[in-house]
Amino acid sequence: MLSRILVGIDGSTHADKAFEYATSLAKRFEESHLLIVNIFEKFATVGYSITAELQKDREEMLRKYLDRAKAMGLKSVDIREEEGSSAANQILEIAKRENIDTIVVGSRGQYLAEDFLLGSTSYKLAQSAKCALVIIR
Amino acid sequence: MLSRILVGIDGSTHADKAFEYATSLAKRFEESHLLIVNIFEKFATVGYSITAELQKDREEMLRKYLDRAKAMGLKSVDIREEEGSSAANQILEIAKRENIDTIVVGSRGQYLAEDFLLGSTSYKLAQSAKCALVIIR
Repeated sequence: MLSRILVGIDGSTHADKAFEYATSLAKRFEESHLLIVNIFEKFATVGYSITAELQKDREEMLRKYLDRAKAMGLKSVDIREEEGSSAANQILEIAKRENIDTIVVGSRGQYLAEDFLLGSTSYKLAQSAKCALVIIR
Repeated sequence: MLSRILVGIDGSTHADKAFEYATSLAKRFEESHLLIVNIFEKFATVGYSITAELQKDREEMLRKYLDRAKAMGLKSVDIREEEGSSAANQILEIAKRENIDTIVVGSRGQYLAEDFLLGSTSYKLAQSAKCALVIIR
């Protein structure tokens, strides 16, 4: 329990809060491993050059989060970036593959109108996660 | 963050796992307070005598959880039982009143068919919780 923690980040403020929460857990559960994950949801209509640019931004964002986690004193932390048509499905796949026991995500992503209380990724994870899911607001 | 934890219990195995997770959090965040909550969802059709019997069962269940938490070495722990037409709304009210920062619940309650992956209480909490929500499977 709480030995392998995954946090999903996407550049949103909710995801940043999720990162804070996940690192706080990882610090207290000292023997735990933290995996910081970003999923790029591929849309068929986005051109190659924009995709390449976004890719660079994502790598930089992940590296910054890795640096922050290390600066907080976390010893076992790693980053992962993957692409997929659904962030939730991709996170579930990684969680299974990596034997994750706790997934931490923000309640809503970057691109959701304020009217929606829960983003589609958090919603799908709430429905389908096989391990503990922490939704941060 | 993680200083006031609420766990919802209802006699289901999922709720029991939620209790295990919540106490594990409370142990690591030593300064935290754990509030063990049971909500009795009042149905208009249940008669008085059955309600009184259920009430006794609930009190006993809560006391057992309190004993377990204390046996685990938790110093600041309390129990609460309330009635309401919606467990989720009641939990949200208590969370607000008690300044809770993390709610822990099982993914589904006692009375849900196996087909449903997420119970209505967890679902409503995922939509409306103002603090961190942990859903346990």
